[in-house]
Amino acid sequence: MSRLEGKVLVAQGGGPTPVINQSIVGVALEARKFSQVTSIYGAVHGVRGIIDENFVDLTRETTHNLEQVAGTPSSGLLSTRDKPDEEYCARMFEVMQAHDIRYFFYVGGNDSSDTVRIVNEQAKAANYELRSIHIPKTIDNDLEENDHCPGFGSAARFVAQAFSGINLDNRAIQGVYVGVIMGRHAGFLTASSALARKYFDDGPHLVYVPERHFNIEKLLADVDRIYSRLGLCTIAVSEGISDSEGIPMITKLRGKEERDSHGNVQLSGSGALGDLLADSIREGLKIKRVRSDTFGYLQRSFMGIQSDRDAREAREVGEKAVQYAMWDNVDGSVVIRRPVLDYSVDYELVPIGKVAGKTRHMPENFINAEGNGVTDDFLNYCRPLLGSNFPEPHRLRAPAVTRILKA
Amino acid sequence: MSRLEGKVLVAQGGGPTPVINQSIVGVALEARKFSQVTSIYGAVHGVRGIIDENFVDLTRETTHNLEQVAGTPSSGLLSTRDKPDEEYCARMFEVMQAHDIRYFFYVGGNDSSDTVRIVNEQAKAANYELRSIHIPKTIDNDLEENDHCPGFGSAARFVAQAFSGINLDNRAIQGVYVGVIMGRHAGFLTASSALARKYFDDGPHLVYVPERHFNIEKLLADVDRIYSRLGLCTIAVSEGISDSEGIPMITKLRGKEERDSHGNVQLSGSGALGDLLADSIREGLKIKRVRSDTFGYLQRSFMGIQSDRDAREAREVGEKAVQYAMWDNVDGSVVIRRPVLDYSVDYELVPIGKVAGKTRHMPENFINAEGNGVTDDFLNYCRPLLGSNFPEPHRLRAPAVTRILKA
Repeated sequence: MSRLEGKVLVAQGGGPTPVINQSIVGVALEARKFSQVTSIYGAVHGVRGIIDENFVDLTRETTHNLEQVAGTPSSGLLSTRDKPDEEYCARMFEVMQAHDIRYFFYVGGNDSSDTVRIVNEQAKAANYELRSIHIPKTIDNDLEENDHCPGFGSAARFVAQAFSGINLDNRAIQGVYVGVIMGRHAGFLTASSALARKYFDDGPHLVYVPERHFNIEKLLADVDRIYSRLGLCTIAVSEGISDSEGIPMITKLRGKEERDSHGNVQLSGSGALGDLLADSIREGLKIKRVRSDTFGYLQRSFMGIQSDRDAREAREVGEKAVQYAMWDNVDGSVVIRRPVLDYSVDYELVPIGKVAGKTRHMPENFINAEGNGVTDDFLNYCRPLLGSNFPEPHRLRAPAVTRILKA
Repeated sequence: MSRLEGKVLVAQGGGPTPVINQSIVGVALEARKFSQVTSIYGAVHGVRGIIDENFVDLTRETTHNLEQVAGTPSSGLLSTRDKPDEEYCARMFEVMQAHDIRYFFYVGGNDSSDTVRIVNEQAKAANYELRSIHIPKTIDNDLEENDHCPGFGSAARFVAQAFSGINLDNRAIQGVYVGVIMGRHAGFLTASSALARKYFDDGPHLVYVPERHFNIEKLLADVDRIYSRLGLCTIAVSEGISDSEGIPMITKLRGKEERDSHGNVQLSGSGALGDLLADSIREGLKIKRVRSDTFGYLQRSFMGIQSDRDAREAREVGEKAVQYAMWDNVDGSVVIRRPVLDYSVDYELVPIGKVAGKTRHMPENFINAEGNGVTDDFLNYCRPLLGSNFPEPHRLRAPAVTRILKA
């Protein structure tokens, strides 16, 4: 097979993650090794950067600075939520042709994988020779075919560390605590809060994911049971929880919707869901101290919290994408397999149609029968993804003093 | 002066911090060195633990476990918001006398320092011989006489790391971002978000603290100016911001109040203020993407983020408190001085009346003239408190590619 000569273009779409730059840098460093690559460009703001002819020349980056950027969260090439159609693609190919771009690597989640599928199809239809490879990334961990997705491990670590602290905080001044976690259709990130548990009475005591219908009466009964026993209750809930008719609780509450260009209801960037749930608990159970936090953008962007394992894998999927394109001259989506539970990974290239626009949900064996918690299967699945040196809380073990007056 | 023989009691009041256990452990380890100390007890849930005769025997703790607990956020002895009155104190002294407690060390902020003042006065009135020393702690950093307070540096580090990530996130998918930070009357913690700035266009671009009246029209004008220039805007705002009549913005919005036993309006544990501000900006300036996060309890409890300097000082104030009590046989409040800006500290014992129930505000020279940002004086004051190895973001420096089609 003759080698396809031309420029490499790498970009990112959708929400940032703590390790997305690892994948960009994986592409940039690996692509430098192939003589058919005439230059390595980055598109600024994803596919929109192609339309705008807004490129930076990554061949003019030092390896040192690329490594520094790799360790920085979010996307150094910035992002977009644009979704290309036929006309959008035609303009992209015009720009690509002008710059002789023949390799397109797009780092992203569900929507961005669909972008790669569209670009791929449109390139064939337009007879524009282009290798298009999707590189996985999403803190939601909801890409089909993948055991887990780059970005998830670091976000999960943030959530677990947060709940580890919340456990201590809610023990000190007792009450009910509701933490609202990102996750539109998949509950993996919310479920990762359960990795915060160390002591028997540690929370989260209740975990609600979008894979199960949410019912406020069930919530109140669950909280009442825990609170009566422990005098406190810590709850993790996905922003995407919906009722039995599939209506998101946030939409019910807000009375209005905000949608992005992919047609998704805006769930993040508001504390409304947490406040609603806290109010319901406060009023329904007559508990005075009920608090809610919405973890918001911190969980996907926080500076200084990365899973080292997640970072390495994010680098590898970028590197592998280039290898597949250069050695095999094929299109597709890089996926992560896990041959050994604790722990090894392998990579594979699958047809983009197997991933594009699809959503992976938590498997049945990860959610408990009551639909208000996770199983050991999930804990065993998730634990290695958090990376090494997970901080551990410690409690006083000082013995109680025998009462004199109230003996 | 004859040595006062008896037991030491240590406890904590008010909101936890990431380093409060350092102070508890500082007391426990230092008190072991004095032969007049017959035992070291911890009261569980602050002063309420005294009423309930709920003590643990810290002399039966291993040094190793004390050190482990010292590195754990929140309060291992748990906390309370109880405020003692004369009758409450009478019951406390009854329990203290039964256990021969003669030294009382109370770690806390404004309200807890007032508790120490009350206990101190009531003990004198009741002729109960007791040394009462207040050990400073508050993420709000608002104790009088102190250059800064243990707990603040770690919370400030969390806020600064969060905004460092938010800067990257809001660059990637541009919009307006509002981060709501804890701080009822003092804006120190909100101001610490400014330590996230590295590049010229980094945020937070606007910082609003409770020391200045908040005005929504002024906010809109400020945001409009920044957004027009940068295409994005990142804002840090204190939960305690109030209008020119002193009414908290959160109260205006919620239409109802929740107060604790100290009479404080509940500000935390709700995303309402952030949502209100986001709605105002969205509607007032017709900007589509406006998001808000309320940092909530994460900023005071997050597991795994401590300022090493803050941790050391929290330990030292506990240690010093015991030294003052044992060597000088006096009451008072331990305060932190800073003889050298960058950086050394010294400790002093001041009369409790100088600290109790008072609130320190940000000095004039820390807030800019427009009341929407901080000064270099503040940055220089705050930077050393964040501790060592503050994570640093890095940007791509790849040169722009010359346009071919749109040249």
